[in-house]
Amino acid sequence: MTSGLHEQTAGDVRQRLAARLPAGAVVTDPDVMGGFVHDEAEWAPFGQPAAVVRPRSSAEVAEVVSACAATGTPLVTRGAGTGLSGGANAVDGCVVLSTERMTAVKAIDRANQIAVVEPGVINDDVRRAVAEQGLWYPPDPASYQISTIGGNVATNAGGLCCLKYGVTRDYVLALEVVLASGTVVRLGSPTTKNSAGYDLRGLMVGSEGTLGVVTEVTLRLRPLPAGPPTTVVGFFDTLTAAGDAVAAVTASGVIPVALELLDRYCLRAVEEWKRMDLDLDAAVLLLARLDTPGAVGEEEAATVLRCFEAAGASGALRSDDEETAEALFAARRLAYPALERLGPLLTEDVCVPRTRVTEMLEAIEAAGARHGVTIANIAHAGDGNLHPLFVVPAGDDDARRRAQAAFDDIIAAAIALGGTVSGEHGIGLLKRAGLAAQVGPDVMALYAAVKHALDPAGILNPGKII
Amino acid sequence: MTSGLHEQTAGDVRQRLAARLPAGAVVTDPDVMGGFVHDEAEWAPFGQPAAVVRPRSSAEVAEVVSACAATGTPLVTRGAGTGLSGGANAVDGCVVLSTERMTAVKAIDRANQIAVVEPGVINDDVRRAVAEQGLWYPPDPASYQISTIGGNVATNAGGLCCLKYGVTRDYVLALEVVLASGTVVRLGSPTTKNSAGYDLRGLMVGSEGTLGVVTEVTLRLRPLPAGPPTTVVGFFDTLTAAGDAVAAVTASGVIPVALELLDRYCLRAVEEWKRMDLDLDAAVLLLARLDTPGAVGEEEAATVLRCFEAAGASGALRSDDEETAEALFAARRLAYPALERLGPLLTEDVCVPRTRVTEMLEAIEAAGARHGVTIANIAHAGDGNLHPLFVVPAGDDDARRRAQAAFDDIIAAAIALGGTVSGEHGIGLLKRAGLAAQVGPDVMALYAAVKHALDPAGILNPGKII
Repeated sequence: MTSGLHEQTAGDVRQRLAARLPAGAVVTDPDVMGGFVHDEAEWAPFGQPAAVVRPRSSAEVAEVVSACAATGTPLVTRGAGTGLSGGANAVDGCVVLSTERMTAVKAIDRANQIAVVEPGVINDDVRRAVAEQGLWYPPDPASYQISTIGGNVATNAGGLCCLKYGVTRDYVLALEVVLASGTVVRLGSPTTKNSAGYDLRGLMVGSEGTLGVVTEVTLRLRPLPAGPPTTVVGFFDTLTAAGDAVAAVTASGVIPVALELLDRYCLRAVEEWKRMDLDLDAAVLLLARLDTPGAVGEEEAATVLRCFEAAGASGALRSDDEETAEALFAARRLAYPALERLGPLLTEDVCVPRTRVTEMLEAIEAAGARHGVTIANIAHAGDGNLHPLFVVPAGDDDARRRAQAAFDDIIAAAIALGGTVSGEHGIGLLKRAGLAAQVGPDVMALYAAVKHALDPAGILNPGKII
Repeated sequence: MTSGLHEQTAGDVRQRLAARLPAGAVVTDPDVMGGFVHDEAEWAPFGQPAAVVRPRSSAEVAEVVSACAATGTPLVTRGAGTGLSGGANAVDGCVVLSTERMTAVKAIDRANQIAVVEPGVINDDVRRAVAEQGLWYPPDPASYQISTIGGNVATNAGGLCCLKYGVTRDYVLALEVVLASGTVVRLGSPTTKNSAGYDLRGLMVGSEGTLGVVTEVTLRLRPLPAGPPTTVVGFFDTLTAAGDAVAAVTASGVIPVALELLDRYCLRAVEEWKRMDLDLDAAVLLLARLDTPGAVGEEEAATVLRCFEAAGASGALRSDDEETAEALFAARRLAYPALERLGPLLTEDVCVPRTRVTEMLEAIEAAGARHGVTIANIAHAGDGNLHPLFVVPAGDDDARRRAQAAFDDIIAAAIALGGTVSGEHGIGLLKRAGLAAQVGPDVMALYAAVKHALDPAGILNPGKII
């Protein structure tokens, strides 16, 4: 597209949007638009939008999609922009649709354990609203205090407690979606079971805004857990010992709510920042959270403790003291921002079969050594979902090149171990080559066929995933 | 298609199959083929196949699909033929692919809690094989002793224990699928989490053989439950009282493994057949199964008992005696065959929000009265999934017409209550009109677009679902 044509289309779509949306819904000021052009994926490219729109309803979203369809304008939908793969990054001349004004919790049906929410509502706001009714929305990505349900749906976000309670897709019963044509449809069913027709609900979840714009989400809820959780902590001198402990817990049959791993780099970064008196001699900290109540819960905690000790923990203890437990899980949640203080972070998100966690950690260490890069590790270890983190000083091109090489090596290693290039962050821009390497050309062709079926003109978040 | 052309194509595809498959894999004897032409859906039409094939491997399945693709022959895949919607029914001139020779449990990975199985393996055979390793495959359709995993995947089968443990889709991590082109692909990932690419794994589950032929299933397993379950039983004089009891259990926050309902017609049919000393004065029997161990399990059982009593149970008791509990659940499982003894059965499968169970039962009773039809009810009441059953004497055309009218009324009532036309049996042939009424023309068009994207020539199980 020549620049002239580009300008013309941009003018055309702006005009249509202004004509169809209320005042204030359309932003074209470049300075303001600057806050809507990328997510938190360092290094992922982004372009300059023609406009940013902030609709308040599915009818307004339908107007936006129709305007884009009529003018052939790319449409990039974004929630809070906390993504880590570039999935919400603008492309040149696009319309960015921000869901920031669609934040209603429209209904909480206590008796049916369901909530109906708009896509722009913050995960934690849903959590708090349903807790008032004695209900629980389990999916808890580390970003839960700032990320939106719509964004969680777009990436099929996981979190800490998905080891026991599942990921976002498991909690989405139904969706309202604006299709590429501007048509509004409802997919799925608010019932607990549904075998009627193709599962386009599940297909939409994790499709990163490339197949439709989600305008309403019907969430499955659970009763609030009965009591406070129990925490079991283990410090390990080697990655291998920690990996063995994870495998032993899985084999024991105990399913913790969460089984998290932090390595020495994370521990140091948190300690330097927050002074939490963490054991800095350890190579790895494992944190298990258990919520089975009563005597069975006691036994489970004892089992996990035994698994940690048998795997050679240098220190292991069980804590029923909620304050200590919260502090340790806070250390887990603080690891990412603590490392971010040291420079821009590139975040990996590989997931391997649980028995391969040790091998994957060793492959990560080897990749770091090979390319002269320091790699910190946060992992949902019980799920086999690892987040190697690269701190790359801004402006250091050589460091960046080396980190990219290590990033690619880690993806290759994950695939070789039977794993996936994304456990919970999605593909966006950063993992497209990895996805193609993982699934192969036949499945990529299938993705393209499905994309074409739902978005023949290719206006919805083009260039993401495929 | 004229009959002459039809014959020619039939000869052509038979020739290709015979040339590419081992001796014995292709059946063209009409008498033998007669056992492969329909499932257990009374009244669903079926045609005469050109051939029945019994491949032993995905390579052989790929040969079959390629032969069908080359000749434009419809391909109908079937497992054990226990479906209740006509999803496996032959169409004239088709190739029926039976998975009966693909029954291997290829791998049980104890450490990762995964099994890899062929589609023709019986659900219960998987259950027993993994139990030897201390593992559990939860989905338990009533047909679990005779239905195949491939068939369970095709319909996204539920069962009794999905109230707490979910349905088939929740336990399918990955699939090997032969596409309409004959290409073999792998979808999903054996990891516990996966956010890489579109969820075509989930799309295939429940697609009733219309989007691809599943040749391998990677199943997620759980540890075997620790101890024997507890059973709570309640007899109720009215449907309303039983419905209130179900709503009270849901509201209590207790999640039973199963919460099943049998009405008086089922109780009588079972009693007349098996003499189990069931209370025939009751209108409804509710059966709750709980598996939370220890004191918490005790409390849960007490809560369910209180819910039953508060809703006005004429009798309610808790049984830790496994024999009694098994006998009661056996009555539940025997209800279907017990009614079948009285004549051909037409089976409904509507699912409504859990709070609408009473209204749905009342609507069923009203439909029966309106059309002069006796309707028995089995229900996964805790899920809101009801199976009204129509006994229609063979050859009684008037009774059949009246039953069909009641069947249609029940579907309309389920949709009006915010429910779905299929909780776990799928659409097949019998529910196509109901599906269209439920989801509307825009979603039906979307299904057609997805179907066309994956099967452009329309050879895979044509006429099913859409």
